[in-house]
Amino acid sequence: MSIPDLNTIKSAAKRIKPYIHNTPVLRCAGINEITGGDIFFKCENMQKAGAFKSRGACNAVFSLTADQLKKGVGTHSSGNHAQALARAASLRNTDAYIVMPETSPRVKVAGVKGYGGKITFCKPTLQAREETLQRIIEDTGALEIHPYNNYRIIAGQATAALEMLEEMGKTDIIMVPVGGGGLLSGTALTTKYLLPGTRVIAAEPEMADDAYRSFYEGRLIPSNNPKTIADGLLTSLGSLTYPIIREYVDDIVTVSEEGIIKAMRLIWERMKIVIEPSSAVPLAAVLENKIDIKGKTVGIILSGGNVDLDGLPWLEKE
Amino acid sequence: MSIPDLNTIKSAAKRIKPYIHNTPVLRCAGINEITGGDIFFKCENMQKAGAFKSRGACNAVFSLTADQLKKGVGTHSSGNHAQALARAASLRNTDAYIVMPETSPRVKVAGVKGYGGKITFCKPTLQAREETLQRIIEDTGALEIHPYNNYRIIAGQATAALEMLEEMGKTDIIMVPVGGGGLLSGTALTTKYLLPGTRVIAAEPEMADDAYRSFYEGRLIPSNNPKTIADGLLTSLGSLTYPIIREYVDDIVTVSEEGIIKAMRLIWERMKIVIEPSSAVPLAAVLENKIDIKGKTVGIILSGGNVDLDGLPWLEKE
Repeated sequence: MSIPDLNTIKSAAKRIKPYIHNTPVLRCAGINEITGGDIFFKCENMQKAGAFKSRGACNAVFSLTADQLKKGVGTHSSGNHAQALARAASLRNTDAYIVMPETSPRVKVAGVKGYGGKITFCKPTLQAREETLQRIIEDTGALEIHPYNNYRIIAGQATAALEMLEEMGKTDIIMVPVGGGGLLSGTALTTKYLLPGTRVIAAEPEMADDAYRSFYEGRLIPSNNPKTIADGLLTSLGSLTYPIIREYVDDIVTVSEEGIIKAMRLIWERMKIVIEPSSAVPLAAVLENKIDIKGKTVGIILSGGNVDLDGLPWLEKE
Repeated sequence: MSIPDLNTIKSAAKRIKPYIHNTPVLRCAGINEITGGDIFFKCENMQKAGAFKSRGACNAVFSLTADQLKKGVGTHSSGNHAQALARAASLRNTDAYIVMPETSPRVKVAGVKGYGGKITFCKPTLQAREETLQRIIEDTGALEIHPYNNYRIIAGQATAALEMLEEMGKTDIIMVPVGGGGLLSGTALTTKYLLPGTRVIAAEPEMADDAYRSFYEGRLIPSNNPKTIADGLLTSLGSLTYPIIREYVDDIVTVSEEGIIKAMRLIWERMKIVIEPSSAVPLAAVLENKIDIKGKTVGIILSGGNVDLDGLPWLEKE
C-alpha cells in the first residue's frame, strides 16, 4: 500500500457505495448572511453510524477477503470509529473486538453494542488501550484496523470530499476538522487531485492543537494532555496522515472552546440538524475570523452527529 | 374563493417556489426497523422560517397586489405562522403586525423581530388576542391573514404534500399532525386529487384532541383548555378546515405526551435532525400502535423545527 491515488479513492467509493449514504449537502441562508460566504455543508452527521467513520471502516473491512476476516477485526476507540467498525464487521458476518476506555460515554458504548461489537473495557490511558488491544489480537488472531493511520481508512474517508465536489462542481475552499488526520488527509488528496486550485484548510481546537503545531513546526508533535469538548479530535496525527497533511493541506487554524459551542448551537438552531462538537470546529474558525470567506464558496464536512442529548454543552454548568 | 382544486394548489406551488425550500425527504433504516414500515419524512423543519407555515404565508401574501398590501398584513399567533407571515411581508416590503401573547417563547419573539415584524403583546387569552388584532386592523387598515382558516393558506400548505408525492411517486399512507387543520386539510386535498387510494391519517395530542372529537362526533367542537408540549397544536379546527377534513381525511388518532417526547427524541437521535414536538406526533402514533404500518410505505410531514434549545423536554424536571 502507498498513498491513495485518485483511482484508489474512486475504487473505495464504488466498494462502499452499497453500505453508506451519499449524504445530503445543505446550505443555510442565515449562516451565509452572518459569514459573508456561500457555505455547502456535507452532512456526514447523517452518515450510517452517525459519522464519516463508516466510510473508512467499510472500505477497510470490505477490502479484506472472507479468509482474512475469519478471526475478526479489532481496534481501540472511545468514539465513532468503534461504532463504524462494529457495523462494518457485522455486515461481513465477522467479529469486531473493541477496546474502550471505561470512561467512554454511555451512548457510544450502546452504539457499539447495538452493532454487535465485543467490548473490552480498560483504563483510560493510551498505554492501557494499546496493551489491551495487543492482548486481544494475540488471543483471537483478529486483524487490527487503526482508526486513521491506515491507507485503506484514508481512502475511505477521502470519498466524502469526492461526493461533495461532484455535487458542488468547484469551490474556493474546503474545510474539515482535524483529530488523527484521516478525514483531513483523505479530503486533501481528493481535493488536490480534482481541484488543485482549491484551498484545503483544517480547523482544530486550541486545547488539542497537535496538528497545528506539527504543521507549522515541520515535525510530528503528539498531543500533550488534550482537553476539548470536541471529543472526536483528542487524538494526534499519525505517521501516515502527517506527511500527506504536510504536503497537501494549505493551512491549519485553531479555535476556542466557546467558539465551538457557539458554532454548534448556530448550526442546530439555523439548520435544524444535530451535530457533535467536532463538526462545528470549521464554522467556529470562520466565526472567530481565523479564515476570511467573504464572497467565497466553501465546502465544510460536518463530521458526525453522535452527541449525548442528555448533556448539551450550552446547558452545562460553568 | 372556494375549496382549492388541484390547479389552485399547483399555482400556489409555482407562486411560492422562489421563496421557499423544496425540503429534503429523508429515510432512516433504524426507525424503519423499529416500526416495520418504510417511512419517508418530509423535512419542513428545514423550511424557511423553520416550518411549513412559510408555504401558506407566502401564498397568501404573494397572491395580493401591491395596492392590497399597501397598509400591511396582520395576524395573532404565538408561533410559526407569526414568523412566516413576518418573513413573507418583508419579502413584499410591507408591514406585518403580529399580536403575540405576552407569554410567548423568547425564541419565537426573536424570530418575528428578526424578520421585521411589528409586535404587539397582549394577555394570553383568545379574547385578548382577537380584540387586540381587531383594534390594530382598524387603526392601520392592515389585511388579516388567518393562520389556517383561509383558502390561500390551505392551498399553500397543500404544496408540501405535492412535493413529497412527486418525490415518492406513490404511498400507502400519508400522516401529518393536526392543530388548526391548515396542513391537514391541504395535505388531504393534494393526496385525494393525486392518489385517491392513499390513506390520509392525522395525529393529535390526547391533551388537545378537538380534531379527533370533531371528526368522530361529526360536528365542530373547539378545544377545551388544551395543554400539550406540542405547542403548535393548541389551536382548534376552523370553519373552513373542518369540512375538508371531514370529507377527505380517513382517520384521526391521538397520542400521549410521553409518546410525543419519545418519538421526538428518537428522530433527533437516529435522524440527526432538530424537530419541534408537534412534528413528532405522527411517529408517536405509530410507536404507540395507533396505526399499523407494517409492510407499508408512509409519508410523514415533519411540520417544524422551532424549538428552544435551552429547554429540551427530556431534560425537564418532572
